[in-house]
Formats: sequence, C-alpha cells, structure tokens
Amino acid sequence: MVADIGLIGLGVMGRNLALNLADHGYVVAVYNRTADRTREFVTSEVGDRPVLPTFELRELVTKLRHPRVVLLMVAAGEAVDRVLGDLLPLLDDGDIVIDGGNSHYTDTARRVRQAEERGLRYVGMGISGGEEGARHGPSIMPGGTPSAWPHIRDMFQDIAASTPDGTPCCDWVGPGGAGHYVKMVHNGIEYGDMQVIAEAYDLLRQAGTTTGEMAEVFRRWGRGVLDSYLIDITARILTVTEDDGVPVVDRILDAAGQKGTGKWTVVSSMELGRPVTLVAEAVYARIVSSFVDQRRRAANVLTGPDRSALRSVTADDVHDALYASKIVSYAQGFMLLKAASERYGWDLDLGRIASLWRAGCIIRARFLDDITAAYRREPGLASLMLDDFFARALAGAQDGWRRTVTTAVAGGVPVPAYASALAFYDSYRAARLPANLIQAQRDFFGAHTYERVDRPRGEFFHTDWG
Amino acid sequence: MVADIGLIGLGVMGRNLALNLADHGYVVAVYNRTADRTREFVTSEVGDRPVLPTFELRELVTKLRHPRVVLLMVAAGEAVDRVLGDLLPLLDDGDIVIDGGNSHYTDTARRVRQAEERGLRYVGMGISGGEEGARHGPSIMPGGTPSAWPHIRDMFQDIAASTPDGTPCCDWVGPGGAGHYVKMVHNGIEYGDMQVIAEAYDLLRQAGTTTGEMAEVFRRWGRGVLDSYLIDITARILTVTEDDGVPVVDRILDAAGQKGTGKWTVVSSMELGRPVTLVAEAVYARIVSSFVDQRRRAANVLTGPDRSALRSVTADDVHDALYASKIVSYAQGFMLLKAASERYGWDLDLGRIASLWRAGCIIRARFLDDITAAYRREPGLASLMLDDFFARALAGAQDGWRRTVTTAVAGGVPVPAYASALAFYDSYRAARLPANLIQAQRDFFGAHTYERVDRPRGEFFHTDWG
Repeated sequence: MVADIGLIGLGVMGRNLALNLADHGYVVAVYNRTADRTREFVTSEVGDRPVLPTFELRELVTKLRHPRVVLLMVAAGEAVDRVLGDLLPLLDDGDIVIDGGNSHYTDTARRVRQAEERGLRYVGMGISGGEEGARHGPSIMPGGTPSAWPHIRDMFQDIAASTPDGTPCCDWVGPGGAGHYVKMVHNGIEYGDMQVIAEAYDLLRQAGTTTGEMAEVFRRWGRGVLDSYLIDITARILTVTEDDGVPVVDRILDAAGQKGTGKWTVVSSMELGRPVTLVAEAVYARIVSSFVDQRRRAANVLTGPDRSALRSVTADDVHDALYASKIVSYAQGFMLLKAASERYGWDLDLGRIASLWRAGCIIRARFLDDITAAYRREPGLASLMLDDFFARALAGAQDGWRRTVTTAVAGGVPVPAYASALAFYDSYRAARLPANLIQAQRDFFGAHTYERVDRPRGEFFHTDWG
Repeated sequence: MVADIGLIGLGVMGRNLALNLADHGYVVAVYNRTADRTREFVTSEVGDRPVLPTFELRELVTKLRHPRVVLLMVAAGEAVDRVLGDLLPLLDDGDIVIDGGNSHYTDTARRVRQAEERGLRYVGMGISGGEEGARHGPSIMPGGTPSAWPHIRDMFQDIAASTPDGTPCCDWVGPGGAGHYVKMVHNGIEYGDMQVIAEAYDLLRQAGTTTGEMAEVFRRWGRGVLDSYLIDITARILTVTEDDGVPVVDRILDAAGQKGTGKWTVVSSMELGRPVTLVAEAVYARIVSSFVDQRRRAANVLTGPDRSALRSVTADDVHDALYASKIVSYAQGFMLLKAASERYGWDLDLGRIASLWRAGCIIRARFLDDITAAYRREPGLASLMLDDFFARALAGAQDGWRRTVTTAVAGGVPVPAYASALAFYDSYRAARLPANLIQAQRDFFGAHTYERVDRPRGEFFHTDWG
C-alpha cells in the first residue's frame, strides 16, 4: 500500500490529524521518534483505518507516493530543524515538507528558502482548533512554496472544517512564512478574545452576579452578535460543578499560562509599527495574573476605591463593551496583517483569511462573516473600523462601552482590554492628538525637528526653544 | 601631545562629548569618516582646547596613551560593526573600545564577547541628555568588560552630570549589554513620561484651558512632586509663540516620530514576561498619531460621545493622574530591569541605576530620589508600588486619577497611558483576577490543565468539560 502522506510526530495533534486524514480515505504513513508511541497508536486508536506504522525515517519515505508529502507535527523550535536535518537528505526534487506546528514565521521563511535551495518544496501550515479541531476539522492556514499547493490542496481542504455554505476553512495564504504568520495573528487575536470575555466575567462577578446567572448571560450573548466558540464554551464552563456543587471555575487558580504566539504578535506589531493594543494588554494581563504571590501581597498594601459604583454594572452594557472591544481588536489584527503583507510582499487576501477562521478554529464566530463581507466590499480597507457596518456597530455600542469602562474604573475592577480598545477608538477618530507636544519636546531636547499643520508633509522645521 | 581618549564620529553628540572632555582637561584625538567634518570641527568649535584632529584610524590610535581608550559615537547598527572591523586590528591587548551610541543590548553583548576573545576590553555605554547633556553633563550608563571600568571611571565621572549632593551620574552598570539595556529602559520610560504629559495637555486643552494657562499649570506642577526636566521644558514650550502670537506648539503636526528604543523595551518586556503596559501604550500612541490621513478620515466616520463631561476636568485631578501613572510606569520599568538582571546575570543595583538618572538625562526628576531611597530601604523590592512611600502616594492620588480617566472616557478624549496604568494598578492589587476563566478555556480547548486554589502550586488538573 502506497501512502498519500507521511506524518512525523504522534503527539495528540499529530495522532488526531492522522485519524482525520485516514477517515477521509488518505493512506497515512506515521513515524514517531519513540517507537512505543507509534505501536500504541496503531494498536489502540487506528482500528482498521489506512495507517501504516514506520520505525525509521528511511522506512517512512519509502512508503510515500511521488512527489512525497511529509507533514511534521513536532514541537516548534530546534526539534523541527533536527527532524529536517535527518529528513531532507532522504527526499527527492519536488518533494513537499509541511510544518504543521506553531513555528515562528521567520524560522519558516528561512526553512522555505533552505528547502527550495535543495529543490524541495516547503509549507508552513498554521492549524487551529485544538485537539477536537485536528480530529474533526480544523482551520488550516498553509503558506510557503506556491507550487506545493496544488499537490496538497484536496487533502487538506477535505480534512478542514467548512462553513455552513460548504467553503473549506483551508486555503493558500501566501509565500514564505505567511501561513505561520497568519496563524500567529490568529492566536494573538485569540488572546484578546479570551481577555475581553474574562473582563466581562470579572465585572459581572464583582457586581454580584452568580456563576449560574453568568452562564445564562453568556448563553444569551451566544445567540446574538457575539455568537462564537469561545462564548459558547464559556457558558458551558460556568455550568460545570464539582461534587459539592461549587463551580469548577471557582476552584481554578487565577494564574494564566501562555505559550508565546501572543507575545510574538506584539513583537511583530512593534517591528511593523502597528498598534495591537488589545492583544498587548491581553498578554500583559496574563503575565500579571501569573504574579500570584506579589498580588496577594499587594492586595494588602495598595488601596482601592469605594466599590459602590459596581452596582450600576449591567449585562447589556458589558455586552456592548465586549463587542466594541472585539471589533477594535480585529481591526488592529487586520491592520497588522495588512502591514506584514506589504512589508514581506505576501499579497494577503484579508477577506479570505477572515473566511478561513469562520469555522474549525478557536476564534470561530459569526462575526467573521461580517469581516469577510467588509473586505469583499473594499479589499484595500485601511481599517475595519472605517467599514460602514463596523462603524455603525461601534456607534451603537459606544455608550454601553463607555459606561462599562467608567464604572469599572470607578469601582476598581481592571478592564485593561476594554479601556485600551476605547482609548484606541478615541485616538483613531481624533482629528488632533497631543503628539504635537511630543514633537515639540523631541525638538527641544534632541533637535529632532517637526512638521507643521500649515505646511506640506515632508517639510521639517526646528525651533530654538530658548 | 599624547591623547587620553580617541573619539570616532563627529556628529553633534560626538562633537559635544569631545568638547566636554576637553573642557575637563582631557586630550581628545578625534576622527570622522569624512575629513571635512573633522576640519570644520577643529576650525570652528574647538578653539584652544586640547583636541587633536586625525584623518586615518591608524593615525588616531598612534596618538593614544596605553591602554588606549577609543569612544565610538557612530550610528547604531551596521556602522558600528564596520568601524570595529577597521579599528580592532589596530589595537593591542587590554585596549578599551567604548560604544556610546544607542546600540541594541544584544549587539553589545556580542561585541563584548568578540572583543574579549581578541584580548580587548569593550564597553557599551548609554548616554542620555541629548545635545545639551553631552556638552555640559550627561547621564552615563557604562557596562561591558568589568576591568575596563577603573581605566575610564574618572574621565566619564568628570564629564557626567552630578546630583546636588555631588554624586556623579555615571557608574558601572554591569557586564555584557547591561549598560545599553539600562539606557534602553531609560528611553522606554522617557516615552511613557512624554505620553503622560501629552495626555494632561490634551485633556486640559479639550476642557478649554488656553495654552498660556497650561504653561502656568505645568510651571506650578514643576514645583511639586512632578518637578522634572520634561515638565519644565513643557512649560517653556507652551510659552513660545510665532510672530503672529500663536503658540508654536499649535502649528506643529500631531504626528510623533520615534527611533526604536521604546519598541525595543516592549519587545524585551515580552521576552522576559514583564508588563510594561504604559510604555507599550506610549509607543502605540505615537504610532497611531502618525496615521494622520487615516485619522482625518476616521474623524468623519466614527462618532464620539457628548463632550459635556469634560467640563468637570480639573488640573488637580489631572496632576494626580499624571503622578500616579508615572509611579506605575517606573514600577513597571524597574520590574523589567530586575527581570533582565536575573535572566542575564547582571546583578544590577536598581537604587544606583535610579540615582544615575537623577541628573543629566531626559527623565531627570526629583522623583528619582524617592526611587533611590526605596531601593536603599529594600534592595530586593519586587515592585516600587509595594514600597510604603509609593503605596501612600498612589493612595493619595487615586481618587483624582480615577476621576480623570472616567471623565476622559465619558468625554471621548483618549488617555491610553492613564487608563492602562490604572488597569495595571487594579490588576496588581487584585487578590483574584479572572484568569481562572482563561485557564478553564485553555483546558477546555487545549487540555492545557490548571492549578487549583485549594491545592499547592505545581499540581496540575484537567477537567473533562463535556
């Protein structure tokens, strides 16, 4: 039996992708560094699916039809280079290597170059949807050597999630590291989405809403414009109790972990000069949460305000804060994608990227249809906030959004994402910001010069401030 | 005449440092890539000071006493490596090369290693204070090969600024890239300081305060806890008018530039997992300001609130918002320095670093005495916010701070730094944050596991959320 694809790395994501591929009729040769895991997988999970265990890389490649397609599902970082070091010498011209992990896009861009120099084709493929997605239909974001795409398209569109209208959530993103970059921004946005939900939960909780009542609030929200996977699982999480009837979530330590893609998104935003303020605040919020001991100490040292303002928190206002902040966050994320596309020459189709996220992935949401539609209306849109639909949505939400932030600030509940998104909204729509004073200061102490409102851009002036 | 130091690069910073050194009796041999600039400098600026022009690097090094000390004042980046490539082969064991530019600390760490492998000594030296500081007394932050310090200490402590008690604002920071790292964080904090002043200016302006009245407000603030160089120059800037009587600042385009050290600070904060939210918001605020055309368009598309709330803005409240935000920003900056010290093994003395900034540099302020004092009281302080003095200062300022943010939010004026600092304050003092929900979500979709409030740290649990 000749295999359609080789898969290296049988962690949970690798195993689930292998089963997903096999369920769609593809013959999958699998290999894992430790042979026991391969044996256990074929014994306990594969059943009668077309999965061929192999125990040497050399054996793996002999099983594959030409051009060979090998999917790496190993930990991002040095492990990828190690496997490539062993694998590439065994391949022939035109063979295709796919990295399905969360590699950094610059590593992927380098590996694409190196593989192409050897006559191979290389694809960095973002895969979102967690274990369940991998098993039953993830969102897939491939990029790299363009000529690889026709060879792998059917296979990955078959196993990907699809939208209600039948569009697969897998399409070619662009050259170089584009696929992994788009996945990175997806993850950054995911950090933001989780933070805006966490702030809603915190505000409602601190205003006295019970966990059960909150579950109902999130269920209701999930039937409206916030309809999304993360709102859905939040409602479900809030209903799960321990044997003594206490919600599990109340027993979970408030120290959030993170793996790195959120931080990478912020680093890229700094390099490209695009403000992803909400993602940055979300990443920082997780960091602060992890300082458990310092916070416990600070809680006894630093004072807060009278909390009576929190009595005026309403679920409707918080809903609007969450929705408006989410719009701002996506507007920022897509501004970053646009900048990366221009800087790296990727020619990203932003509407198509939004549509890749409509199903299968963690941030899937009805909302993404609106984003896709906005970019269909105006592909070169500078910011989603300038699209009529979103501008109206922001106008409709802003009163509740402002009330939510002022109430939280007055009552001492941190809402870094809502507040940051609102500051961005008010900055972005400001015909005049106070940056003129900053330019004056820079000119004062560093003779950095400034432009003038009454002269064309590109003319620079210096004042002797005396 | 044998020179005490060679100086390469006669831009304005290099020229002013040469003059400063010569004024203190040091003989300076100077060299510039273009000979005309060297000739012009010695003809028009040097006078009878002990400055020796040279026109070849080889000539420069022959003028120097042993061990030689060569100070590079060239643009950070490739130019430094180019000069080093030419210079290092001309030097002997034990000679000392100093990079006085704004090099990235990782470049400096690499150059220290490379120089030391050749038997040389290398110093990355942060210099702050702009042109005026370089000429009459900057703040100087040297780090690198420790054995270089005794040879250069007197010279640089002589030309540095000094505090009212006579302490020079120049002291050894640490090994490797420590000096340039500390300078980078200084600059990041400077971005924050400028942003918190800009927000005060914007709020007062939008509340109807005239530029002249604002100058008086800043002058008054400069006599209190905000006493600092940047407040001082702000007051002076606001009094400078054009011939028609209009303040110059009103004619300056509101598009702020930046050179990169603020961005680097944020990138490092992501790598080290420390929340410098205020610097990040300040960097992003400059970026948003630079989107002039988009903002002009957005101003016509995106709506704002009724602005009547701005009538309740008071200078006293804004003062407190500025002061409290500044405390948070420095607390964040010093948390970052502490983390870098631990990660890179620099053993930074945070109190001494604060004291280096007490005079000469752009962020010089009375405030830094309070920080120095806090670290003298408790050198291992986890955060300045936990120091009694600053905790009390925050408690005293918080009502005005909260009123300022709520008023700005209600009135549609962006205060990203004030709001972000306040969210950080409220997060840091929160015994419980909503990160428990984030951990539940991560466990739901990715089986990332969580810790529990009723079990010791380090035990991880997973729930089948169903």
